[in-house]
Amino acid sequence: MNYRMVFYVLGRLMAAIGALMALPTVCAIFYRESVLPFIIPMAVAFLFGILLSFKKPKNNRFLARDGFVGVGLSWITVSLIGCLPYIISGAIPSFADAFFETVSGFTTTGASVIADIEAQAKSILFWRCFTHWIGGMGVLVFILAILPRSDIKNSNLMHLMKAEVPGPTVGKLVSKIADTARVLYGIYIALTLLEFLFLVFGEMDVFEAITHSFSTAGTGGFGVKNDSLASYSAYSQYVVAVFMLLFGTNLNIFFLIITGHFIRAVKSEELRWYFCIVTAAVAGIFISVGLQTAFTEGAFRHSFFQVASIISTTGFYSADFELWPVITHVIILILMFCGGCAGSTAGGIKISRIMLLLKNGKREVRYIAHPRAMISVKLEGKTVDHDTIRGTTSYIIVFIALLVSSVLAVIAIEGCDLITGFTSVSTCLNNVGPGLGEVGPTDSFGTLANPTKLILCFDMLAGRLELFPMLMLFSPSAWKHHS
Amino acid sequence: MNYRMVFYVLGRLMAAIGALMALPTVCAIFYRESVLPFIIPMAVAFLFGILLSFKKPKNNRFLARDGFVGVGLSWITVSLIGCLPYIISGAIPSFADAFFETVSGFTTTGASVIADIEAQAKSILFWRCFTHWIGGMGVLVFILAILPRSDIKNSNLMHLMKAEVPGPTVGKLVSKIADTARVLYGIYIALTLLEFLFLVFGEMDVFEAITHSFSTAGTGGFGVKNDSLASYSAYSQYVVAVFMLLFGTNLNIFFLIITGHFIRAVKSEELRWYFCIVTAAVAGIFISVGLQTAFTEGAFRHSFFQVASIISTTGFYSADFELWPVITHVIILILMFCGGCAGSTAGGIKISRIMLLLKNGKREVRYIAHPRAMISVKLEGKTVDHDTIRGTTSYIIVFIALLVSSVLAVIAIEGCDLITGFTSVSTCLNNVGPGLGEVGPTDSFGTLANPTKLILCFDMLAGRLELFPMLMLFSPSAWKHHS
Repeated sequence: MNYRMVFYVLGRLMAAIGALMALPTVCAIFYRESVLPFIIPMAVAFLFGILLSFKKPKNNRFLARDGFVGVGLSWITVSLIGCLPYIISGAIPSFADAFFETVSGFTTTGASVIADIEAQAKSILFWRCFTHWIGGMGVLVFILAILPRSDIKNSNLMHLMKAEVPGPTVGKLVSKIADTARVLYGIYIALTLLEFLFLVFGEMDVFEAITHSFSTAGTGGFGVKNDSLASYSAYSQYVVAVFMLLFGTNLNIFFLIITGHFIRAVKSEELRWYFCIVTAAVAGIFISVGLQTAFTEGAFRHSFFQVASIISTTGFYSADFELWPVITHVIILILMFCGGCAGSTAGGIKISRIMLLLKNGKREVRYIAHPRAMISVKLEGKTVDHDTIRGTTSYIIVFIALLVSSVLAVIAIEGCDLITGFTSVSTCLNNVGPGLGEVGPTDSFGTLANPTKLILCFDMLAGRLELFPMLMLFSPSAWKHHS
Repeated sequence: MNYRMVFYVLGRLMAAIGALMALPTVCAIFYRESVLPFIIPMAVAFLFGILLSFKKPKNNRFLARDGFVGVGLSWITVSLIGCLPYIISGAIPSFADAFFETVSGFTTTGASVIADIEAQAKSILFWRCFTHWIGGMGVLVFILAILPRSDIKNSNLMHLMKAEVPGPTVGKLVSKIADTARVLYGIYIALTLLEFLFLVFGEMDVFEAITHSFSTAGTGGFGVKNDSLASYSAYSQYVVAVFMLLFGTNLNIFFLIITGHFIRAVKSEELRWYFCIVTAAVAGIFISVGLQTAFTEGAFRHSFFQVASIISTTGFYSADFELWPVITHVIILILMFCGGCAGSTAGGIKISRIMLLLKNGKREVRYIAHPRAMISVKLEGKTVDHDTIRGTTSYIIVFIALLVSSVLAVIAIEGCDLITGFTSVSTCLNNVGPGLGEVGPTDSFGTLANPTKLILCFDMLAGRLELFPMLMLFSPSAWKHHS
């Protein structure tokens, strides 16, 4: 590993996180709350930031495995600094709990250890939701967007980007990676702003509109009320639901629309699948819930809201879906694993991967019937090469292995029921937030044992970074020094 | 499809099943029970058998897809005839129930709709267990073993064999397929006989020893008592447990041992994994159960018995494992999906597939760290070609797709809880027998709705035939006539 270069990136990152803490500080000043929970971490971040990135390393060669390990380390570092405000303010005194909350924030999971959210300081709630917004686009993509162009070579940036941006393939929108990052951030900010405007137009005050916009944009799920979005008006719920679906869409689609390629955007195969899955899931849940109670506007709204919330892996809720029929839980679990589009802020396996896997499975059946036929798998009209298919199928195998071993460990530690064990891991690995059983939408993760929280933290990070950066941390060869 | 040839094979098969019904008929005569439940189906089978295979087709060309569709049709045909004794005797009056019981028998699943097993006639219980024994080795492998050599070309036989023998690869023990089938049957009969001898040496009478040997050999799980093997002595339980593990082993291993290649047999990588998984699972369950109650010989025996029963996908039980700690259920579910060795009578995904998938996943992680390295996946010391890896990963994807859609359908129909829905499908797809929740070891599948039973029948057949023969039945291209 090129240690100097990795340290340099880590230093830059810490400085950036320190700078970003200015925002919650302003919030604290505005609400006359203590600024210490943010000033102290800022000082720490700047100190380490300057120490680590004081001298730019001469050798800026950066291998793929450096990118993966660097990304894994970056996220752990950011979470270690990000949890300080909770500890210092006393909002979450235990380190394990504060770390869990921060990892849950940055990975845009939204699983919380806080039982009474409304009792917290406004600036702390602001920071919670802000971590979603930062983590949604990726902490390093952010660095890429603000770094001077000459700092790191373009090819090196690609290694970082590949490790952090979700989906089986990374599309460069414009020739320079740094420019791509800037364009993506522009779209991200614009959409967040748009949601904010829609929300303040309703009954939400500015604070609520900002925090919910942050959470929606990062497809996170932290809110400012104990009952998530259940007590807000139908208008606010529809707005949030629509924006959850938008943020679960590949951001490239918006780039295409902005640059006038509307037809190309609509022709996106993944977008169509996304639309079909959402429609089918809403229909399925609406029918089930309707049969249980009545076919009202509320039943439709809650079905629509919950589908949008789970497939985008946000994790807000407008109703306690644990009370719904069991069939809706199966649909919710399927949506959880499905996740949003590649290149969005959503977690999960991603729709393009599911498409690829199902098409490949179908090809296998046809291949057995016609052993001599050459059948290719096409995605977005293009033939997918063997390496991508191999990578995607291997991804699922590693994903399942991590899921099964985590469930085994969690149930061994907690002695909880199967549903709680399975859904707590699933919701963390897919960066959703609420599960079922003891970790349902109205429950908190605070009651779990500390070793369980550590496992779930690992799962959240592995899910957000698409497994390999976190697994690479355990590969000795990735730590070997190279020049 | 070469319809004439497929009909010819089906005809031969029906005649063979008719002939096999002579055994339960003898049993019925011995116990002075009605022979009609077996005589009538025998007559039907012989009639159709003669009609269909009266004239040997001139064109005996047989494509791979003919093999798959032929195997799928064969198993459905056999199950349709095999359920007649239940209906005629009145043991299971409903057709759906009788069909379920027969499919469960031939696929060696062992899930039963009969609530009171001890109330049934001996000849019916004999037939139930005998279906396990027939289905364990494969109904068509049986035909291959008894068919005159000149009847079907060797290459054609391979297509049939491939579709019916479990595991990612089919090894020919001896040059001719028909001879391989004979050798395998020889080993199978010898092992069954050995178990019978061990069992009659204990407290079981001849009838109990025969039926339990049949069930163990096929790794089925039908017994003759309402509490499976719980009321038998520790000796009998140990004997059955050891034989379940033996029948979960690749039969080729025994062939190697018989032919003096003992070192090669012991060096089998799959066998070592099998041994390690069993040891780890027994240790895990014994510790959990021991902590719950006490570390007694009984706790060890039940742990060992249950691990042997589930990994070999037999499904006998010596204790109600639903009362054990939840962590043991996770281990049992993992074993269920794992299954026995390739080339055994066990169901599940098979250990060699799991090995291949995990090794491939590990390779992927290494591949990301070293993109230019050429890393090959080795199994049993040999490099696995890309087609086998691709086929195995696709197999898992199709498996998961079938699992998820079946769970969705079962819960939609039954409105049952998640555990019942998930484990009823899992236990059928992996040909195990008992699940958890409402389909636990002490429950019956008889309470399920008929559409659910149909789905589970499909899953049992798909699991036993390793998916593709059943899926191929829905592929229009497989039904096209070719000359």
